Amino acid sequence: MSKEKLHIVKIGGKLINESSTLDLFLEAFVAIEGPKILVHGGGRKATELSQQLGVEVHMIDGRRITDKETLDITVMVYAGLINKNIIAKLQGLGVNAIGLSGPDGNVIQSQKRMIHDLDYGFVGDIKMLNLELINSLLNNDLCPVFSPITHDGKGLLLNTNADTIAAQLAIALTQSYEVDLSYCFEFPGVMKDLENSMDTYPKMTKTQFDILKEDRMIHSGMLPKLKNGFDAISSAVSSVYICGIHNMYDKKGATQLLH
Amino acid sequence: MSKEKLHIVKIGGKLINESSTLDLFLEAFVAIEGPKILVHGGGRKATELSQQLGVEVHMIDGRRITDKETLDITVMVYAGLINKNIIAKLQGLGVNAIGLSGPDGNVIQSQKRMIHDLDYGFVGDIKMLNLELINSLLNNDLCPVFSPITHDGKGLLLNTNADTIAAQLAIALTQSYEVDLSYCFEFPGVMKDLENSMDTYPKMTKTQFDILKEDRMIHSGMLPKLKNGFDAISSAVSSVYICGIHNMYDKKGATQLLH
Repeated sequence: MSKEKLHIVKIGGKLINESSTLDLFLEAFVAIEGPKILVHGGGRKATELSQQLGVEVHMIDGRRITDKETLDITVMVYAGLINKNIIAKLQGLGVNAIGLSGPDGNVIQSQKRMIHDLDYGFVGDIKMLNLELINSLLNNDLCPVFSPITHDGKGLLLNTNADTIAAQLAIALTQSYEVDLSYCFEFPGVMKDLENSMDTYPKMTKTQFDILKEDRMIHSGMLPKLKNGFDAISSAVSSVYICGIHNMYDKKGATQLLH
Repeated sequence: MSKEKLHIVKIGGKLINESSTLDLFLEAFVAIEGPKILVHGGGRKATELSQQLGVEVHMIDGRRITDKETLDITVMVYAGLINKNIIAKLQGLGVNAIGLSGPDGNVIQSQKRMIHDLDYGFVGDIKMLNLELINSLLNNDLCPVFSPITHDGKGLLLNTNADTIAAQLAIALTQSYEVDLSYCFEFPGVMKDLENSMDTYPKMTKTQFDILKEDRMIHSGMLPKLKNGFDAISSAVSSVYICGIHNMYDKKGATQLLH
């Protein structure tokens, strides 16, 4: 028996900044049929709030550190303001959405990042996804909407990369579904030469990506999205697209990632 | 067949302000056996954040108005910071908690308050509780933790009184459970004469309450708690107590509300 299709969409920060852009995105998201999951990132609001509150960005050896004050702001904006506004809007559009942060039903457990004894602050790498809960919500026609806030299972909230959450959810859910993953951001796809044209790469293989990365032809902000996307496509996820709001549904001009 | 017992606890704002007090409360909450629900209010943090951001309190004809800026702060603090920290802590203590605001799974729908053409701003009165979802979560051994943020079903978030949410949940859930409701706040019960002693009323009837209210012997902050508590006890809720952290479990010195 073939598996049912599941759509997982990650929405990028810049699309969240403007209420009108977010509304356009949500209308396109609502049009997707069948079970679906939304993962959202942060947007400018957290930075704005940090500035208003005079919370400084802490850097150690060139790395940005998520200290406790920054974590609190992130939790307020991501798990509170953005997540609950998206849920209310989706409910208004007839989608039975439910907001989830990592601690909710222990849905995403992470561990505090420590690499070579370097402390990154309150940043967590995914350790465990509660597939039983996610499947149960999907089976009850609920649409899970994930904020990038996770927890360590010991009482601590942590900030996790939303691109990675989307890819790891997609990979894990291939157990029960045929999963399509879309990274939806402010451009229609991976741009060939943003300064001179709006042309996108229609397809991209991991080998092409490695070459473009080597040649520094891909903007730094695209790197984590593409890295996570290639992780997904090489791990049984059926399709991975980088797209914008207007081609999220038909994928015209979007970039498909290939093995 | 007798119904299973369900405990619903409302935790007041002041208990949330200090992390150590909240931890003490959560330890007592964890000790309650069987299905349980937590409802939390706000606490000082929202007011602090408003002051830090220079958001003024708007009053019209002596009424405090929840404008859009204040609503956003409330959503950030209640649905984000407080709710997710409580969930992470409960998970750390071995309770499989899940945070819910009204729009999540359409669990609490409210309507914007308009009384005699007076606009109260973004304040909502409860219109509908999604008992199917709440029962399904309880049946799956999840512990729902409600923030006082609700939605109108049309895309708007609203701020709702947490005491009322606790009472309305208690009343509605008597359909499936024998419900015990506790309002846990900074004193051990309803105080007889706070300025001169720590004596509490062991029991209080609605008639006594009406007389004490008439005589202005009850502090204004207690009124909504007691009003909601008497609504619950007169609507098939098995027991309603006003208590503190230290007597939440054994109810020694707590005030029991009676018909």
